[in-house]
Amino acid sequence: MLDVIALGFKPEKTKFIVDTKHAGLMYKEALKVAKKITYSTAKATFGFKPEQNIGAIFYTAMQAVPAFLPSVLKGEKIPCLIPHAIDQDSHFRLTRDVIAKLGYYKPASIQCRFLPGLGGMVEDGKMSSSEENSTIYTTDPPDTVRRKIMQHAFSGGQTSVKEHREKGGNPDVDVSYQWLTFFEEDDDKLKRIHDDYKSGKLLTGELKQILIDKLNEFLKEHQQRREKARSQIDKFMLKV
Amino acid sequence: MLDVIALGFKPEKTKFIVDTKHAGLMYKEALKVAKKITYSTAKATFGFKPEQNIGAIFYTAMQAVPAFLPSVLKGEKIPCLIPHAIDQDSHFRLTRDVIAKLGYYKPASIQCRFLPGLGGMVEDGKMSSSEENSTIYTTDPPDTVRRKIMQHAFSGGQTSVKEHREKGGNPDVDVSYQWLTFFEEDDDKLKRIHDDYKSGKLLTGELKQILIDKLNEFLKEHQQRREKARSQIDKFMLKV
Repeated sequence: MLDVIALGFKPEKTKFIVDTKHAGLMYKEALKVAKKITYSTAKATFGFKPEQNIGAIFYTAMQAVPAFLPSVLKGEKIPCLIPHAIDQDSHFRLTRDVIAKLGYYKPASIQCRFLPGLGGMVEDGKMSSSEENSTIYTTDPPDTVRRKIMQHAFSGGQTSVKEHREKGGNPDVDVSYQWLTFFEEDDDKLKRIHDDYKSGKLLTGELKQILIDKLNEFLKEHQQRREKARSQIDKFMLKV
Repeated sequence: MLDVIALGFKPEKTKFIVDTKHAGLMYKEALKVAKKITYSTAKATFGFKPEQNIGAIFYTAMQAVPAFLPSVLKGEKIPCLIPHAIDQDSHFRLTRDVIAKLGYYKPASIQCRFLPGLGGMVEDGKMSSSEENSTIYTTDPPDTVRRKIMQHAFSGGQTSVKEHREKGGNPDVDVSYQWLTFFEEDDDKLKRIHDDYKSGKLLTGELKQILIDKLNEFLKEHQQRREKARSQIDKFMLKV
C-alpha cells in the first residue's frame, strides 16, 4: 500500500480493499461466486493437488469480488478493468465465466509484465520477494542496490572483456537491461543502450552502473514519498 | 433466531453469530482453520464429489470458528461446548483435529436428537423443513397441526382396530409417539402411553390426539413468545 501511494495514486480515485479487513462486505459476495465454481473447475484451472488446503481452493471466490464490488456498492452495473500480471490471469478468467451469471459485466484485463528476479527469467518470471538476493526492495539503500546488482543481476555478457568486445552481449536475457526497460522512459536512450550492449561497445559492468544510477535516482524519491505515505493509508482504505 | 429466543434463552448469556453478518470477525479466523485442512481431508470427511462448489468445501472452516471465537474475543483459552445434531458431527470432529494446533481447547460436543419427519425416520432422521407435509412449522395454526398429524404422521399401529387391539402398536416407529418423547415431560405419563399403545389399549387416532393437544398447547405459548422475540433480535446479536 505504501508503494502504491508513493507512486502517485490519488486517494479520491483509489480504494484499498483488504480481504480480511473487508470480509464483512466481501464474504457474502464471494459466496455467490463460490456457488458457481465447482471443485472440478477450480482444480482444472489452478492444478490443485488433494493436499491443497481448503482456504486456497476458496480464495478465487474472494479474488473475484473486486471485479463487481463497485456494482454492489453503487447498486448498478459498472464495467471493471483489472490490471494484473500473468499469475492472476486464471482467477480473472474464472471470474469472467462466473460474474456474468450473477448479472454483472465480465471484467476486462490489462496484463502487466513482471519485473524479473535478479537471477534471471525463470518459469513465470516473477521476482520472488522471499529470495533476498534476487530481489531489490523498495526500501533498499543505494549501496545495497549497487551490491545486489553488481553481484547478483544475471548478465547477458561474455566471460571476458575481450570476448565481449568481439561477440557482444545479449540484452534479451540480461536482467539489468530488462530492468532498464521498466525504468528508462527515454526510448531513444534505451535503444542506444540495447544496441551498444549487443555490439560489445557497452560492457556488463557499465550497463549495470547505468541501471544502478537509474534505480537509485528513482528509489531516492520513492523512499521519501513512501515515508510520507504512512500517514495517508487511512484515506485510501475503502470505508464500509 | 425467533424460535431460540421464544424458547427462553437470555440475551445476557446468548450471542447470535451470522456467518455473512459477522464475516469481518470470522473470516480471518476461518482462514487459520482452512490452512490446516486439506481438500483430501475435507473430501474424506464429507464425501465431496468433484462437482461440489468451492463455497461448500470452505464452509467447514467458518463452521469451526464459534468453537474458539470466545477465546479470540477474550484473548484467553476458553473451553467450548457445542450442542449439535449428528449432521454437524463431521464439522466438529474436523474442528477438534485442527483448533488444538491453533492453540485452543478442542471443543466438546453434546449430540442432540433430531425430531423425525412426520413421514417416519429415514436416513439421518432429520425433519426436512422443505417438505411441507412432513414438517410442522412453529408458526402453524392449530387446525394445520391437527390435519398434518392426522393425515401424515407415520403410524406404528395395525391396519384395523380389531387387529390393533389384538397385536398392539409399535411405539418405536410411531412418529406421534416419538414426538411425544420430546414434548411430554412427565416420564410416568409417557411410559403409560407407550405401554397402552404397545398393548393395543390405545388406538393410533387416540395417540395422535394426545400429540395434537400437547403440541398445540406448546405452540400457542411459543407463537406468542415468538412474536415478542421480533423486537429482541438485536439484543442477541454479537456486537463487533
